[in-house]
Amino acid sequence: MKNLLLLGASGSIGSQTLDVVKNHQELFNIYGLSVGLNIEVLPKIIRDFQPKHICVGEYSDYQQFLAKYPDIIWHYGDVGLIEMVALLEYDLLVNALLGFVGVKPTLEAIKRGKNVALANKESMVTAGRLINRFKEENNCEIYPIDSEHSAIWQCLNNNDDQIKRIILTASGGSFRDYGRDDLVKVKVQDALKHPTWTMGQKITIDSATMINKCFEIIEALILFNLRFEQISVILHPQSIVHSLVEFNDGALLAQLGHADMRIPIQYALSYPTRLSLDLPLFELSDLKFSKIDYNRYPLLNLAKTVDERGDYMGCIINAADEVAVKGFLHEKISFLKIEEIIFETVEYFKEAKIETYEELENLDKEVRLYSQTWIGD
Amino acid sequence: MKNLLLLGASGSIGSQTLDVVKNHQELFNIYGLSVGLNIEVLPKIIRDFQPKHICVGEYSDYQQFLAKYPDIIWHYGDVGLIEMVALLEYDLLVNALLGFVGVKPTLEAIKRGKNVALANKESMVTAGRLINRFKEENNCEIYPIDSEHSAIWQCLNNNDDQIKRIILTASGGSFRDYGRDDLVKVKVQDALKHPTWTMGQKITIDSATMINKCFEIIEALILFNLRFEQISVILHPQSIVHSLVEFNDGALLAQLGHADMRIPIQYALSYPTRLSLDLPLFELSDLKFSKIDYNRYPLLNLAKTVDERGDYMGCIINAADEVAVKGFLHEKISFLKIEEIIFETVEYFKEAKIETYEELENLDKEVRLYSQTWIGD
Repeated sequence: MKNLLLLGASGSIGSQTLDVVKNHQELFNIYGLSVGLNIEVLPKIIRDFQPKHICVGEYSDYQQFLAKYPDIIWHYGDVGLIEMVALLEYDLLVNALLGFVGVKPTLEAIKRGKNVALANKESMVTAGRLINRFKEENNCEIYPIDSEHSAIWQCLNNNDDQIKRIILTASGGSFRDYGRDDLVKVKVQDALKHPTWTMGQKITIDSATMINKCFEIIEALILFNLRFEQISVILHPQSIVHSLVEFNDGALLAQLGHADMRIPIQYALSYPTRLSLDLPLFELSDLKFSKIDYNRYPLLNLAKTVDERGDYMGCIINAADEVAVKGFLHEKISFLKIEEIIFETVEYFKEAKIETYEELENLDKEVRLYSQTWIGD
Repeated sequence: MKNLLLLGASGSIGSQTLDVVKNHQELFNIYGLSVGLNIEVLPKIIRDFQPKHICVGEYSDYQQFLAKYPDIIWHYGDVGLIEMVALLEYDLLVNALLGFVGVKPTLEAIKRGKNVALANKESMVTAGRLINRFKEENNCEIYPIDSEHSAIWQCLNNNDDQIKRIILTASGGSFRDYGRDDLVKVKVQDALKHPTWTMGQKITIDSATMINKCFEIIEALILFNLRFEQISVILHPQSIVHSLVEFNDGALLAQLGHADMRIPIQYALSYPTRLSLDLPLFELSDLKFSKIDYNRYPLLNLAKTVDERGDYMGCIINAADEVAVKGFLHEKISFLKIEEIIFETVEYFKEAKIETYEELENLDKEVRLYSQTWIGD
């Protein structure tokens, strides 16, 4: 029985993780979990999984639930999250938190030598090499939960030292049929129409600017110990092939199939084995690929700065992007201004140096303040 | 240093094996080898690889070479082959022999607990379960060398027990754009124009009748312990994706890339690691797949008889096909008659039972005699 600590249980990845666990209760146990403000999901989760520990976002919710479910050990807030990660006895942390708040739990788990199934993108993007250092010191692993990195991980199957390059597939986002000139006047509602996936607003915009692929390159750099030159991006509008590895003997492996996030989630939970999942046989049909123009998507090149200057660049890019996308969604800046703000911010902070989590947290805050000056209140 | 015994050194797979060894002389040594009648390649091979043992086809060649190279231990004929396989101390048998003559060396090696890198299709097709039995008894492995089974083996990476199904890709052969009616009048020279590969005559015809894919299904059944229903065939005229595995969690892995047989050869030699091979980055572009019509290619269904009746059916299909294709190439029978002869022969021998290699050898001979009666002299 594998005891899981699931952070972010009410989000998309969190609830699909619960689905996976429900189908394999003989193997997995939800030992502890957290939700933020979506406390309405808790009664059913408690009924279905009987967790020993739960963390909620607010103190008032904490008080209310403590009174109603006295057999459960309750925690609250960011401190409660870290309490659970740092003190409980679990086998695997499933980190499905959204945003920078997810970074510290990853670091705390790795410091204790706990394996982490990681859906929190910010952990690798902003603190990747810190994580890699702790991983080595404490002999534990990161199991990626997103379709691209899980695909690469599945293709690698422990042959990390034999990679010639990896190829990340990209759908191209809402404006994939637009040239640079066409982007000048695009509106928020246009940007939010993603061609293949229904996702949150932030990630849909990140997909249109291709900064999401920049983040994925950064994650791959760190997860698989690669150089920027070893990572290609290819346009694949159908999102059927989730990514590929080209090995040093010229052989390529690709992972493909259903767009069902339970596959990478379950693989991260059950690794190194696979468990059955009730999906129909996949109907393979024509697959379309085309070259990507890095001038059309200049943010892709930013990942190179991580290689050149250090992974704190990921922290800067991430914070600047969050601020800029918010500005765009509130119609305070144009679509192309997102890129401009990110490039300006990266340039401004290029001399930063990061050795600890506290420095990283400070940098994140400083970057947000700086980027915000480009937008106004 | 891995000592190789290479049978069939002058053929296409054999000479590419020598290429691979030449590029990694620090890892591989050609301890012994065989050639059939192509003795003209020997002086260069001897110079390049200095093998300790060589087997030639003819006694006269044996005498001549023995006189010229007295430091080498010479063997000849089928008996010489078996002598080398059964008595020498090597680490890996590379069996690149063509035809039924390759079966016994595979069996003899496996009986001694030697791993076999197998390019000889007839071994698995005609004697697969015999091989599997000896493999288990003697704790050794078969490493497949052909693009489809190597692809599956690479995708599996030791997860054999988690297969939902495998998908073999098929180019469709010379007549892939023909309906059944169009096949009535096709001529030998039409059949020999294969769309994507330049291969020998026999295999080109086998590709047009799709019996080669029937053989590959049989091999896969036995190599990966599958049922007929777990093997799909899909038309993929470009021959870029070499085959796919669909796992029980719904994830698919595909192996793809260069059509260079040195990749599967080298993988079989270096497994479980990969070695570098000097190939350019692969240019990924659109991939086309379409469903296969089993009525258009009825021989595909014959593989089911192996599941139902036993693997000696593979021996019958193989022998009948060799005789029928020869008849077609000599313009004694029509293209569609190849299928007819194979189906008739399989029906005639359906009560056969095989327990030993000797029985298999007899069956092979009987089948050839019977099939020949459908053609005449």
